[in-house]
Amino acid sequence: MSKVGSPIDKLKTLSKLIPSDRYASSVAFQAAFESDGLTAFSQRPLAVVIPETIEEVVAIVRWCRDHEVPFVARGSGTSLSGGSLPIADGIVIALNRINHILSLDPQQRTAVVEPGVINIKVSQRSSPHGLTFAPDPSSQTVCTIGGNLAFNAGGAHCLKYGMTSNHVLGLKAVLGNGETVEFGSQSCESIEPDYSGLFCGSEGVFGIATEITLRLQAKPECFHTVLVGYQSLSVAGDAVSAVIESGLLPGAMEIMDALSIEAVEAAVGCGYPKGCEAVLIVELEGPRERVEFEKHQLDAVLRKTQSFSIHVAETEAERLRIWKGRKAAFSAAGRISPDFLVQDGVVPRKRLGEALTRIQQISRESGIRVANVFHAGDGNLHPMILYDGNREGELHRAEQVCSRIIRVCIEMGGSVTGEHGIGMEKREYLPEMFDPPTMALFHRIREAFDPQQIANRGKMFPDAEAPSLSMRGLHPLEKQGLISRE
Amino acid sequence: MSKVGSPIDKLKTLSKLIPSDRYASSVAFQAAFESDGLTAFSQRPLAVVIPETIEEVVAIVRWCRDHEVPFVARGSGTSLSGGSLPIADGIVIALNRINHILSLDPQQRTAVVEPGVINIKVSQRSSPHGLTFAPDPSSQTVCTIGGNLAFNAGGAHCLKYGMTSNHVLGLKAVLGNGETVEFGSQSCESIEPDYSGLFCGSEGVFGIATEITLRLQAKPECFHTVLVGYQSLSVAGDAVSAVIESGLLPGAMEIMDALSIEAVEAAVGCGYPKGCEAVLIVELEGPRERVEFEKHQLDAVLRKTQSFSIHVAETEAERLRIWKGRKAAFSAAGRISPDFLVQDGVVPRKRLGEALTRIQQISRESGIRVANVFHAGDGNLHPMILYDGNREGELHRAEQVCSRIIRVCIEMGGSVTGEHGIGMEKREYLPEMFDPPTMALFHRIREAFDPQQIANRGKMFPDAEAPSLSMRGLHPLEKQGLISRE
Repeated sequence: MSKVGSPIDKLKTLSKLIPSDRYASSVAFQAAFESDGLTAFSQRPLAVVIPETIEEVVAIVRWCRDHEVPFVARGSGTSLSGGSLPIADGIVIALNRINHILSLDPQQRTAVVEPGVINIKVSQRSSPHGLTFAPDPSSQTVCTIGGNLAFNAGGAHCLKYGMTSNHVLGLKAVLGNGETVEFGSQSCESIEPDYSGLFCGSEGVFGIATEITLRLQAKPECFHTVLVGYQSLSVAGDAVSAVIESGLLPGAMEIMDALSIEAVEAAVGCGYPKGCEAVLIVELEGPRERVEFEKHQLDAVLRKTQSFSIHVAETEAERLRIWKGRKAAFSAAGRISPDFLVQDGVVPRKRLGEALTRIQQISRESGIRVANVFHAGDGNLHPMILYDGNREGELHRAEQVCSRIIRVCIEMGGSVTGEHGIGMEKREYLPEMFDPPTMALFHRIREAFDPQQIANRGKMFPDAEAPSLSMRGLHPLEKQGLISRE
Repeated sequence: MSKVGSPIDKLKTLSKLIPSDRYASSVAFQAAFESDGLTAFSQRPLAVVIPETIEEVVAIVRWCRDHEVPFVARGSGTSLSGGSLPIADGIVIALNRINHILSLDPQQRTAVVEPGVINIKVSQRSSPHGLTFAPDPSSQTVCTIGGNLAFNAGGAHCLKYGMTSNHVLGLKAVLGNGETVEFGSQSCESIEPDYSGLFCGSEGVFGIATEITLRLQAKPECFHTVLVGYQSLSVAGDAVSAVIESGLLPGAMEIMDALSIEAVEAAVGCGYPKGCEAVLIVELEGPRERVEFEKHQLDAVLRKTQSFSIHVAETEAERLRIWKGRKAAFSAAGRISPDFLVQDGVVPRKRLGEALTRIQQISRESGIRVANVFHAGDGNLHPMILYDGNREGELHRAEQVCSRIIRVCIEMGGSVTGEHGIGMEKREYLPEMFDPPTMALFHRIREAFDPQQIANRGKMFPDAEAPSLSMRGLHPLEKQGLISRE
């Protein structure tokens, strides 16, 4: 229970909690954990531990509490906001081996899973029962349910089905204060304030979800996917409004602009129509008879928009090719730019066109190119800010562009993040959205879960102790000669 | 700021905050506020205040904080769990005049309203724009949005559209600690932990929502309402599962048993089929073409169930008559019993049949009749426990039946409440659903909002200071001669 002593002394007691092959303080090993999807930041932790049971997770969290050592829980590290970035004087708890689907009840349409389960595996296991897990972030083949929950992940289909929090019925968790709690139930009606919903999106600052009850839903029997080309982004935006106003609720509605199309064509050659300024992907899904019915309605709506071309996927292969472009958008940006930042903001849907015009203006003024990809149905923008890190000052200018775009979202009554979270990246914007009494309340709520700020210290809250960041530099303890590369 | 002095001294300073015609300590006036929908409980408060502006509400809450006088905020007092029951040493803040629809944006499909707005008025104001507010508790013609939010109200249509929390995008509130805060945004994607969702269903113990941003949705273009008679409750339950499994998502699916049918026939003569043990109401709703399409699918499913009779409402008048029976169910119970208690519990949908068998068994064993009405689609039971308060000990036995039914729900992995809330009525069950560390966390979260327990003290938490209850007796201060009937 010693709270004093050097970090190295402290670590000696931690190493006794877990077999040596799943405990590492060596710098070489830690390199794999020093960054997440927001690669601009990098930080080496004191140690990495890889528990294999919930009991080990709880013991490690209690060790952290007793020794006042902060921890970062991490799944696959796909956070795009630096949410799973290590902290210099803390440890990483890697949850990848806490990855069991504990039960699946096809009749009740629920699955109970551990946090390290990969998103897509839930749908794969549910598939023989005709069921699926709806949240589908682009990273779904690698990201974990624990991370989806912590950041309330969305995806292309959250227009129709909602975010992760809409698919979490209950959870068990170990809090930052070391206590274990349980919220929610397998029933679909909630009791009490929505504590599960509070935990979803809490970005790890409350603790670690150790067992999560997910809602499954019927797998769509079939899809109807349409790729529409437009001469301008704003006409594509109007088409989205027209579809929503018709009463249709497609599974997904995605827009990509000319620069994004250029990038994905270079990367994956998905055959999007040439010469258009924007493509819109609309996908209907559901029981065959209903999709058959709805596709005529959709066709009528789309024909009234000033479209350049309308292409319906006639085969599953064609459908996958259309989606291949969209899903590859972020990674494809590398084809047209040495470096890029992916942004995430939300504006009210009806102001999408206005927001895009403002982004184009910011791009012109700054001389920094911006490619736009977005979940159009819910006003969630994902601008990609393209820059060359080798050019003096260009990263800084790119960051300024990000910042201006985010402030446009705030001004328009939107949000600084739709699904990537606050993490490390957007801590400073939070007080621009929430006034001091509200921010103070958020702090007090966190305190109810974790008074010492042991869990994911430094994230989300702007005035939290900042982890000292280094661009792939030495760990502060390494500089002091306290730890070495062995 | 005096925290000492007699209650009467304290009240003198309160009466200065508000004009005398909207401040009442007279017992006669208070009589209207001494009970809510759970009429078994009754309590006179110290005083009732009727603010007309948000500024007055905030000033009154701060007065309560400064003088350590607890308050109960109240709309129309329709709570069925005693959620708006006054507390003997506290005041009632009646929000009925804080009842403005501040704005309505048809394009963004949002309305910003004050807490005293009557539920149905939101839909009435939205109607010319083709929009509606989905949550439709049975009391929707009288209950207020503030109360809907505090208790996360549902209704017959929450199967398809979710509870109130699914329709609240953001809110402003004054907390029990006197601070004003603001959560959420008009955007449909949430930022951060779902603080608005946390506030929804908090039963007034965090504070008062003063401005609520509601999500509106397209008004169904048409309805298709079917009344199906069955020879047994369990066959009706199976029919519900068959409908869900077909992929249809009706707006509502409601079951009533023979005893409930007897009551509503006596009360409103709605013409339900004679001689059946259960009726199932299924209502499709949406755009005309879609409903046209879905009704054939529904018809095919229902024909395969062992139904006794199938009747489709051919006119709006017929549809309203079908619903008249269902909506009158609670008030109609008075036709077949001098007194009754309405219960509210949830079981997993697939265990509905089992739950009903257990309830029948409890009824037989106790000799207390139980009539069942329920939102079948989501497993939400509303048993009505019929008793005669004039018979020695029968109320007590009825309460024991309630208690046994609620424990059946807990045992089956359900919940002690689906939509009525914990309030006064179910405080003692909470620790049966949540373990001590989880309960302790709930207390700490409350403390973050209201450390002195000024807001709705005595509700929800089992170990909170209990209001002293009297069956329409004298107020404790009245007994001491400190206040009088004037």
